[in-house]
Amino acid sequence: MTKEHIVSAFDRDLEGIQATVMKMGGLVEEALRGAIKALETGDTELAQKVRKSDRSVDELDLKVKHDAARILALRSPTASDLRLVLSVIEISAHLERCGDYAKNIAKRSIVLAENAQIEGTVPALRRMATFVLSMLSDALDAYIRKDASLAEAVIERDLEADDMYNTLFRSLLTHMMEDPRSIAAGMHLHFIAKNIERVGDHATGIAEQTIYVVTGALPEDDRPKKDGTSITFKPSDE
Amino acid sequence: MTKEHIVSAFDRDLEGIQATVMKMGGLVEEALRGAIKALETGDTELAQKVRKSDRSVDELDLKVKHDAARILALRSPTASDLRLVLSVIEISAHLERCGDYAKNIAKRSIVLAENAQIEGTVPALRRMATFVLSMLSDALDAYIRKDASLAEAVIERDLEADDMYNTLFRSLLTHMMEDPRSIAAGMHLHFIAKNIERVGDHATGIAEQTIYVVTGALPEDDRPKKDGTSITFKPSDE
Repeated sequence: MTKEHIVSAFDRDLEGIQATVMKMGGLVEEALRGAIKALETGDTELAQKVRKSDRSVDELDLKVKHDAARILALRSPTASDLRLVLSVIEISAHLERCGDYAKNIAKRSIVLAENAQIEGTVPALRRMATFVLSMLSDALDAYIRKDASLAEAVIERDLEADDMYNTLFRSLLTHMMEDPRSIAAGMHLHFIAKNIERVGDHATGIAEQTIYVVTGALPEDDRPKKDGTSITFKPSDE
Repeated sequence: MTKEHIVSAFDRDLEGIQATVMKMGGLVEEALRGAIKALETGDTELAQKVRKSDRSVDELDLKVKHDAARILALRSPTASDLRLVLSVIEISAHLERCGDYAKNIAKRSIVLAENAQIEGTVPALRRMATFVLSMLSDALDAYIRKDASLAEAVIERDLEADDMYNTLFRSLLTHMMEDPRSIAAGMHLHFIAKNIERVGDHATGIAEQTIYVVTGALPEDDRPKKDGTSITFKPSDE
């Protein structure tokens, strides 16, 4: 073995719980991709599948919390090992929320399959989803590799996700004003956009946990605001 | 002293961290009340005050996480003491999110102060806010008193909060369709409604932590769906 230290029972516990979180990450990414595909294609069967798959994510989240509590009780980790266990709890919570968003997008895609489309919105949502999915994937990568600079880069990209959301919000508003028949669909699409943007926030939250594990401190809370639509009409207010 | 056990340094640590969480709870309740008042009165100064106050909530959340990590590292609690420390971390995260919602409502109230009102919506939002604030307050009470049955009652009330939100959503949709000039305001009011409804979800999450501390297990995840608007046009889909 070329590892720097002997693999102890504790290390195996830590690896096990991190593997569970990574499995959750994989399921959540798949659910998000499925939800967006269901939205694009109007495939309600796929949407139902995505909705049901959220149960597995929730179960893994409970497993992570349970395993973490067990490790804390049995092993009493300190310093960086303790941070690792605490970070796993936080990351699991972030992923669980992302799973909820995927489920919610899938639900709305079923309603939208029966409504008229608003031109250009779904492709814009797909671009946004692709963008935040790459943030999520990099955030999980940064965590596993304990790569603080990759984590920093994820946090910086959140501004761009916010911009994409704000642009989409304005475009939706215009469509709804021009054609009031599109209002119901517009409100659902708006929520989908918001859900996707929130996945970016959670990717950022995961990236912050990597920085916490590596440096022992959370980054200063001066990161970009989470929602710019409240200032759409008064940008100077920020 | 009539207490059943001698107050140890560990008990003092636990009491300290719980006191911090209760302080957070107080700040968050005040922020939510302030945000709704700012919305009702168009008081943009109050709204700005609410926005700024979120920083204190965020700081307390970091303090809770820091103190919890310290307790875990120094005291290595097990069984119910460990559950208590873990629950405090979770509750703090729920409150931090509620603080974000208050801040977001305050921001939107500033935009809305310059827009035409949609009749009846703000009073409905106030009723909803009063309802979820009582859920939040009871959830925190149940936690401090370790009262699982009060916690159960909070969880049950979440269905009613969801109903209030769904009713409001349909009413907003109708207004927006009838008067497209109200669309921009309607979208902000919709988000405020959603934020208030989410506070109810977080109150439920806090109540679940009480049950976890008291019984050692989280309730089964069969609680009411978080958002019913995605099925507004197809109730059979649930």
